[in-house]
Amino acid sequence: MNRFSRRLGVLLPVTCALLFPLAISGDPQTADAISGFFPFHVEAERQLEAKFRGIPDATHAENNLRRLTSEPHMSGTDASRRTAEWLRDQYRSFGFDAQIVTYTAWMPQPREVKLEMTKPTRERLASPETSFDEDASTSDARAVVGFNAYSPSGEMTAPVVYVNYGTVEDYQQLASLGVDVKGKVAIARYGQGYRGIKAKLAEEHGAAALILYSDPADDGRTVGNTYPYGPWRPMSGIQRGSIMYTQQYPGDPLTPGVASTPGAKRLAPADATNLPRIPTMPINAQDAAVILENVGGKNAPRDWQGGLPLTYHIGPGEAQVHMKLVMDYQERPLYDVIATLHGTSDDEWVMLGNHHDAWVFGAADPGSGTTAMLEAGRALGELVRSGWKPHRTIVICQWDGEEFGLLGSTEWVEANRAELQSKALIYVNTDVGVSGPNFSASALPSLKDVVRDVTRDVNDPNTGLRVYDAWLRYAATADGEEHGTARQKVAADSSGKAPLGALGAGSDFCPFLDYAGIPAIDLSFTGDYGVYHSIYDDFYWMKHFGDPTFNYQVALAQVLGMIALRFGEADIPPYNFPAYALELEHSVTDQFVRASAMGRAEEDTMEPALDAAAHLSASAARASQALRTLAAEPVDASESIQIDHALAAVEQAFLAPEGLTGRPWFKHTLYAPGSYTGYSAEVIPGVNEAITRKDFATLRREASALTDALMRASARLDDIARLAQQAELSKPSGH
Amino acid sequence: MNRFSRRLGVLLPVTCALLFPLAISGDPQTADAISGFFPFHVEAERQLEAKFRGIPDATHAENNLRRLTSEPHMSGTDASRRTAEWLRDQYRSFGFDAQIVTYTAWMPQPREVKLEMTKPTRERLASPETSFDEDASTSDARAVVGFNAYSPSGEMTAPVVYVNYGTVEDYQQLASLGVDVKGKVAIARYGQGYRGIKAKLAEEHGAAALILYSDPADDGRTVGNTYPYGPWRPMSGIQRGSIMYTQQYPGDPLTPGVASTPGAKRLAPADATNLPRIPTMPINAQDAAVILENVGGKNAPRDWQGGLPLTYHIGPGEAQVHMKLVMDYQERPLYDVIATLHGTSDDEWVMLGNHHDAWVFGAADPGSGTTAMLEAGRALGELVRSGWKPHRTIVICQWDGEEFGLLGSTEWVEANRAELQSKALIYVNTDVGVSGPNFSASALPSLKDVVRDVTRDVNDPNTGLRVYDAWLRYAATADGEEHGTARQKVAADSSGKAPLGALGAGSDFCPFLDYAGIPAIDLSFTGDYGVYHSIYDDFYWMKHFGDPTFNYQVALAQVLGMIALRFGEADIPPYNFPAYALELEHSVTDQFVRASAMGRAEEDTMEPALDAAAHLSASAARASQALRTLAAEPVDASESIQIDHALAAVEQAFLAPEGLTGRPWFKHTLYAPGSYTGYSAEVIPGVNEAITRKDFATLRREASALTDALMRASARLDDIARLAQQAELSKPSGH
Repeated sequence: MNRFSRRLGVLLPVTCALLFPLAISGDPQTADAISGFFPFHVEAERQLEAKFRGIPDATHAENNLRRLTSEPHMSGTDASRRTAEWLRDQYRSFGFDAQIVTYTAWMPQPREVKLEMTKPTRERLASPETSFDEDASTSDARAVVGFNAYSPSGEMTAPVVYVNYGTVEDYQQLASLGVDVKGKVAIARYGQGYRGIKAKLAEEHGAAALILYSDPADDGRTVGNTYPYGPWRPMSGIQRGSIMYTQQYPGDPLTPGVASTPGAKRLAPADATNLPRIPTMPINAQDAAVILENVGGKNAPRDWQGGLPLTYHIGPGEAQVHMKLVMDYQERPLYDVIATLHGTSDDEWVMLGNHHDAWVFGAADPGSGTTAMLEAGRALGELVRSGWKPHRTIVICQWDGEEFGLLGSTEWVEANRAELQSKALIYVNTDVGVSGPNFSASALPSLKDVVRDVTRDVNDPNTGLRVYDAWLRYAATADGEEHGTARQKVAADSSGKAPLGALGAGSDFCPFLDYAGIPAIDLSFTGDYGVYHSIYDDFYWMKHFGDPTFNYQVALAQVLGMIALRFGEADIPPYNFPAYALELEHSVTDQFVRASAMGRAEEDTMEPALDAAAHLSASAARASQALRTLAAEPVDASESIQIDHALAAVEQAFLAPEGLTGRPWFKHTLYAPGSYTGYSAEVIPGVNEAITRKDFATLRREASALTDALMRASARLDDIARLAQQAELSKPSGH
Repeated sequence: MNRFSRRLGVLLPVTCALLFPLAISGDPQTADAISGFFPFHVEAERQLEAKFRGIPDATHAENNLRRLTSEPHMSGTDASRRTAEWLRDQYRSFGFDAQIVTYTAWMPQPREVKLEMTKPTRERLASPETSFDEDASTSDARAVVGFNAYSPSGEMTAPVVYVNYGTVEDYQQLASLGVDVKGKVAIARYGQGYRGIKAKLAEEHGAAALILYSDPADDGRTVGNTYPYGPWRPMSGIQRGSIMYTQQYPGDPLTPGVASTPGAKRLAPADATNLPRIPTMPINAQDAAVILENVGGKNAPRDWQGGLPLTYHIGPGEAQVHMKLVMDYQERPLYDVIATLHGTSDDEWVMLGNHHDAWVFGAADPGSGTTAMLEAGRALGELVRSGWKPHRTIVICQWDGEEFGLLGSTEWVEANRAELQSKALIYVNTDVGVSGPNFSASALPSLKDVVRDVTRDVNDPNTGLRVYDAWLRYAATADGEEHGTARQKVAADSSGKAPLGALGAGSDFCPFLDYAGIPAIDLSFTGDYGVYHSIYDDFYWMKHFGDPTFNYQVALAQVLGMIALRFGEADIPPYNFPAYALELEHSVTDQFVRASAMGRAEEDTMEPALDAAAHLSASAARASQALRTLAAEPVDASESIQIDHALAAVEQAFLAPEGLTGRPWFKHTLYAPGSYTGYSAEVIPGVNEAITRKDFATLRREASALTDALMRASARLDDIARLAQQAELSKPSGH
């Protein structure tokens, strides 16, 4: 029996005529078609989805967020266990088979965090976040002090150098101005990339320590009204955050590539390459002003000038600071929640996930994602209660330890890689689920159309438009970078479709895609959000600024659940491989052009990859065509499942077993976080970075790994074409 | 006898072969040629110029600046008379025939300037400029308080609305945000145009009063170190300045178009259309912060956010201010200094000028221009003492009352228009002569090459390059707008030549060009200059920041004097009419395209002007060709003088006797200050503004005036061609 017969008890005619042509041509979906669904299945799916969308509600979301933000629940603390238990119980109450899965990880907690300016005058710094009468949470003594997770302990006194955002380009400009940070304390503002990259660069340039601060021009009063009178960071707000070198590998620093179970072999901390080596701490804008007012030396370049009321200088000058950090490192517990709604086809998983640990209260990050996930879970549970049975199994994951470095998700993926690779069709992530009304998504190119399709069927609360149309409108009007979060706004898509970004790093999709090759999507609604990783990211903030009606958390639950239903119930999982191949041809061509600019040998080295990319496009087109031909007639169930697994496994062909040069944990040849760009994705990272470093030996190796990966994927697509042709031929009434 | 024979006692062969071809082709000047000079005259001119360049020196400039900045010398005060007398005596001591010419003008002085915030809390504002121990001048009690000249007296209490720079676009954006200033006090930051335009727009939009302030993002600590530790405006610094509607007409408000001599007929002040009608005052950044912190209402658009440590709002909200201004208006005296160095050809004037009045000490504005002018004058005097006699007469003017609204120059030009139009070949202005090391110039298109040529022969003190090459380099590297002054940086020239701007308004060249049609140039060296119109623009500022060695004041003296010598001694005055005509063709085409976009009738209306511009180009080419042919043979002196006068008078052909629509004082059809853009030049202003206003009737009138002007100029160039041909034919050995 084929997949459809498992529901209807009849043979399923697999018709892909609607699926791939739509995906290829980019035509808008017509009202009576859904990618991946056979026409006569569409009506039932629409009814199911409509029923689903009617269930999530704002009152539930609000109550859940109130519960989730009722205490600080940093990973490694008992509050994190309590949160996990509550979530497990919630999913159980929805009808899920929910379990807590426990690992441990090498995790710090701050024992002492001291900073003072010692010259030209003595001033105590490291001031705490201000309490506001409007919001009792802001005086909660349980909130952890400002610290950067995975900073080493240390103590030093040194002059200060201002390094702007502390990026590669900033250090180059610093050098051209004749200033370096050797032996100095570097002070960098947050923004323009992952803080772990700032720490790595400060370390590489010989800084004695690093201070990170929030400049009002980036997410504070220069941008807009500040908390509690607006959504932006007040002068006392501190951005906590990990500086783990997740660009090297995420997860428990002592167990790269294996799950940190009790018996796992562990590295000595000194051997862990994702651990920073120089003391690093975050401060608020008011403390930064005291230091920067005294930094002295040359004037900072004009675009290094931030929003503090002073003229920025580079230093070194008069200002000298004394920093003392004592960090308590221990193996601490992680509590992942895995909640499963078993389907008829229990060997095919559609996965959703977000983390539950928070730096403090975590209303937007991650609570708003969790409320959406809970409402999606509750609604799916209700459907089951009303008689529905999922076709494929739906798995909802609530991760612990994300904030420290994707700990919970990485350990779980490392523990379950083989099973995941044989079963998971897709992983859909959300993190800062709702910080405002602007829909934003990143996805593999094969999955972009699914996100577009689903958002055409969900209403946008504020505008009355469909989410898709509100998204398009926002993409067309909004300017460059978003303030307040580490994310970049996705550039408008030249095709006129709503734009989706590439998957970088910074949340739990990373181990799924980069380590296990599971096709992934990351979703959120964004907005004016300046309280990231501060005590102010709490219920009051969400209720007054982020999502006062909680309707966007409902909309996010609808989008998440709709994707689960599309992938869970589809007759053929709606991956768009021709679109994927086309994007890859462009990306490989970009790298080919860069290589050619280096020289003839480099050009020759990249040529096979170019051919392989063209080959991949041809294979994707053939597979698409074969699936399209396989139409309107029943297909045997075993052949159908075989096609499903083959489709899901194409992504794994892009993994190189040896990983990227210098960072073997990262297996994906096409996507990784940039070694020096942080959150943002690097496409074809091995080749890309080899060319940037002008490292010909690495380029040869990476180009060859890329070519092999593209050829493997072509072969898998060719297999799919053959499978489809076989299925076509073996049909009782084959034509 | 021709002009050269007057020196050498022989007939001069007038060869223009070198002159016009160079100007047309844009070839670099070769070492042994000078535009406008017959080859055998070049060597003598070079020797003369070299001798001239050797005379100006930094010590003289420094001593003169110390004298000029020894007391505040605002126009209308006795100190202004003392400055004029000292200057007259200086020029007399150099050998000039120097006189003080006196006019009066209707001028205000502040009696009472009060500002306080009355809601939400009571705060006294209008705080004075801070005194610094480093610089005794900053505690000089004679400095006038911060005020805007030509504000009416008045008193009101009203809520505040923030209008960003207070430009046309800002009021449009304000309207789109549903806010207006009717009955409110508008607060605008300085920058992006003339403050008189801000006052006019606030008045037109119904504001009860206007506050102007200096935002640190525009010329203060956001941009760089502040006085006395750097060249930028400290938080207490106030930009004084006139808000006279000089875009309507400059000069004494009561005597437009006639000299304000004792017997002149005067308007009632209520009838003067260049007098603002709403109370306006300037404040410093620290007072502005108090108000803006309390303005309330909607958040300002992101690009309205300045550099104060607060989130900018539009209002109206809580903030309410009480303003009281009492201005003492009287007929006050003006003391222009006119210093003449009589040449052999005393009916041909080469004119240089800058003003001597200052808001307070005026080291950069105008003292640095005055020291340069004095050194140029002293050097010319020395040449005379050593036996040289100028060919054409050189006139140096030191104007009074520029700061109030070009009073001294306008009255003098109005008094002497007929003589000027028959005698003046060129007027070369400088104002803020030196505020840094970057050469900058504006000029009529016919005069741009002269400026380029001269700067190829003057050394740039800092770089060791020629001024021309340093200028090119700066133009290529520097970014957009200059901070700190009202001037805009000139955009790079697409031809690869050093770029010169168009002449707008804001200094004393305006009556010469716009009212009398005298070809003009404006010159300066610019730089980091944040103390404009404040008490801090003093000797200490210049000695520490603007021009510590005084070498740029020497370089400016050299450039000024070299232009005087090139125009004074040239065998044919080196106007480049083909280049002028080419620029005009472009400008007329631009307006034609704009008119076409309005409709067919508008296009038809502009077509004759397009034809006339093409005609002008043809005439310019023919005149140039005829002058080129007139080569290598002596020309009769009377014919030669006739050609000189004809060349100088071409510019006057562009004047329309009736003036521009709505502002009849402005006679020039090609250049005027923009009615709503202020300092920056509006090219073809009548047509341009009619199209902007979509005023077809005015467009018809202005297009016709433009066409007539272009045709008149063509006719004059055709006359020149004929004169040259006649001169050629009348040569003893005509070929």
